[in-house]
Amino acid sequence: MAKSPEEEHPVKAFGWAARDQSGVLSPFKLSRRTTGDKDVTFKVLYCGICHSDLHIIKDAWGITQYPVVPGHEIVGVVIEVGSKVQKFKVGDKVGVGCMVGACHSCDSCANNLENYCPEVLYSCDSTYYDGTRTYGGFSDIMVVDEHFVVCWPDNLPLDAGAPLLCAGITTYSPLKYFGLDKPGMHIGVVGLGGLGHVAVKFAKAFGVKVTVISTSPDKKNEAIELLGADSFLVSHDLDQLQAAMGTMDGIIDTISATHSLLPLIGLLKPHGKLVLVGIPDMPLELPVMPLLMGRKIVTGSLIGSMKETQEMIDFAAKHNIVANVEVVSMDYVNIAMERLGKADVRYRFVVDIGNTLKAS
Amino acid sequence: MAKSPEEEHPVKAFGWAARDQSGVLSPFKLSRRTTGDKDVTFKVLYCGICHSDLHIIKDAWGITQYPVVPGHEIVGVVIEVGSKVQKFKVGDKVGVGCMVGACHSCDSCANNLENYCPEVLYSCDSTYYDGTRTYGGFSDIMVVDEHFVVCWPDNLPLDAGAPLLCAGITTYSPLKYFGLDKPGMHIGVVGLGGLGHVAVKFAKAFGVKVTVISTSPDKKNEAIELLGADSFLVSHDLDQLQAAMGTMDGIIDTISATHSLLPLIGLLKPHGKLVLVGIPDMPLELPVMPLLMGRKIVTGSLIGSMKETQEMIDFAAKHNIVANVEVVSMDYVNIAMERLGKADVRYRFVVDIGNTLKAS
Repeated sequence: MAKSPEEEHPVKAFGWAARDQSGVLSPFKLSRRTTGDKDVTFKVLYCGICHSDLHIIKDAWGITQYPVVPGHEIVGVVIEVGSKVQKFKVGDKVGVGCMVGACHSCDSCANNLENYCPEVLYSCDSTYYDGTRTYGGFSDIMVVDEHFVVCWPDNLPLDAGAPLLCAGITTYSPLKYFGLDKPGMHIGVVGLGGLGHVAVKFAKAFGVKVTVISTSPDKKNEAIELLGADSFLVSHDLDQLQAAMGTMDGIIDTISATHSLLPLIGLLKPHGKLVLVGIPDMPLELPVMPLLMGRKIVTGSLIGSMKETQEMIDFAAKHNIVANVEVVSMDYVNIAMERLGKADVRYRFVVDIGNTLKAS
Repeated sequence: MAKSPEEEHPVKAFGWAARDQSGVLSPFKLSRRTTGDKDVTFKVLYCGICHSDLHIIKDAWGITQYPVVPGHEIVGVVIEVGSKVQKFKVGDKVGVGCMVGACHSCDSCANNLENYCPEVLYSCDSTYYDGTRTYGGFSDIMVVDEHFVVCWPDNLPLDAGAPLLCAGITTYSPLKYFGLDKPGMHIGVVGLGGLGHVAVKFAKAFGVKVTVISTSPDKKNEAIELLGADSFLVSHDLDQLQAAMGTMDGIIDTISATHSLLPLIGLLKPHGKLVLVGIPDMPLELPVMPLLMGRKIVTGSLIGSMKETQEMIDFAAKHNIVANVEVVSMDYVNIAMERLGKADVRYRFVVDIGNTLKAS
């Protein structure tokens, strides 16, 4: 018979878990493996709350196995390293994002693209190689293979930097891979939430012109004045859309709800690229004629590789890019989840795990 | 008041036109402009019948202006050239495809991509700069700006080569542009009609492995033995599809009917490219998760530029690539259209205009 989460590993740990589809989080005793040769063990200090965490705790994708400890935008400080660890030492600040394992033998892994490995293991709600479940960053300590740990630059804030580990890399990676990072280009960012607001910041740092496309006219001022976007389109204002048709080299579309691709394809120049990074739970309608007439591309992108994640974190530190966050305590997390479900946050919640998570 | 098609230009000409949505073609008197400085005037010898011609004569896209003379896979022999024509002389064999004009000042034109010029003019059913209508290749003579005329290699058959001017370039261009022409790659071709069968031939000439994906199991033998494909998948055979999942670098999808993209996206390797070249009249369903999970691309491609068309024709001549055609006489055209509507042709009808079009 399988051991309980509290007993399956030698090292006692604790966190907050959801037990069922209500998604309500509450204190939870778990355990962590001892530090392996290539492992980094660290005390969690901050962990962002991504919209995917809300999906996971409520089983919106139908794949959650309870109990589940969410959290995959994790920063902390190293407390122990394995004998073969090369990049880290005790006391180092580190970050862990969505991934904690991959096969290391497929084409994607061979090309430093673990995020597209068919056997990639996620930081929470995955089954690890030893058969135990992975538990995420809403916990006191974590043990992670150093391959999946990034070095945290000294000048990058731990709290506001944490969301870069998912929201940041999810938008940075496609901007780079699809060549949408060239100064002088014009990029659209659809949706101004956790992902969208850091997409604007990265794009501006690359020197491209950024237009935010949103359903909410009241986000115009903050998009332009707070985040530095160059212009703003209200997505249901047909006159505004019409005036911007054919002007964009690429679009990062962060919307997870069902929405129309036709106007977005129209906004692209010929040979432009529409990159979906949100995951609607239903197929979207793809109009074919507008795609052909401009040889336009619709594609998707999923987080980013470890190599890209380190590069992104270093870039963010250099250009002073962080998320705009509301730091909350662990016992506020259920209210934060409720507010996140109503998009009532500017723009990312981060839980102060280090100071507020108490063993119950 | 506008002059009649017979009188609007000085040079008498004749062809076959459809007068209404019945799509029935019959003899039609028209006129052509005198040879301008940069024009090539040629006697039409052969003209292919593309599925788009069937759409045009029946107004399937809702944009046809009657009377319409279809035909945009046109080969002929030059009978007069303008004073500033540089590439052609009387007696030369020439080809004209879908385009006869473009703005020459937009970004697409500046990049030798007239096919994506927003003001591109088509060989038939477009309004030319002088306000007159363009009439296609089902006619005795044509007058075309030399920019839109290709040199016809001596060793390339006129009849079986004609379909290369639309079916050929429509498949050659995306194979090249999207980098699906590298030896050792594995390419899928969906649909084995006029476009699909030449896609197989070009892909094989590039040295890639080709799998034909078709709803018709009875096309397997001809796909492999006649056209040289390496393998064949029946699109509704789930076991066959499952076995081929994740194996293709790219897919050229020639289907104009509504169809499911999900299995095709599944057949792609990570970062693979699904290129649509058929135009269904309804939007297709785009599943987002499979796109993200492999950073796969769905895109479209529309014919090809004049530069690419010349390159493609030269490549075809060098590699002995022609369409498999059934050559018919002008007065068979209505039966040919009916048979084309039932996919009853292997694989392209070509009308012997030069020998069978008689002034009525």
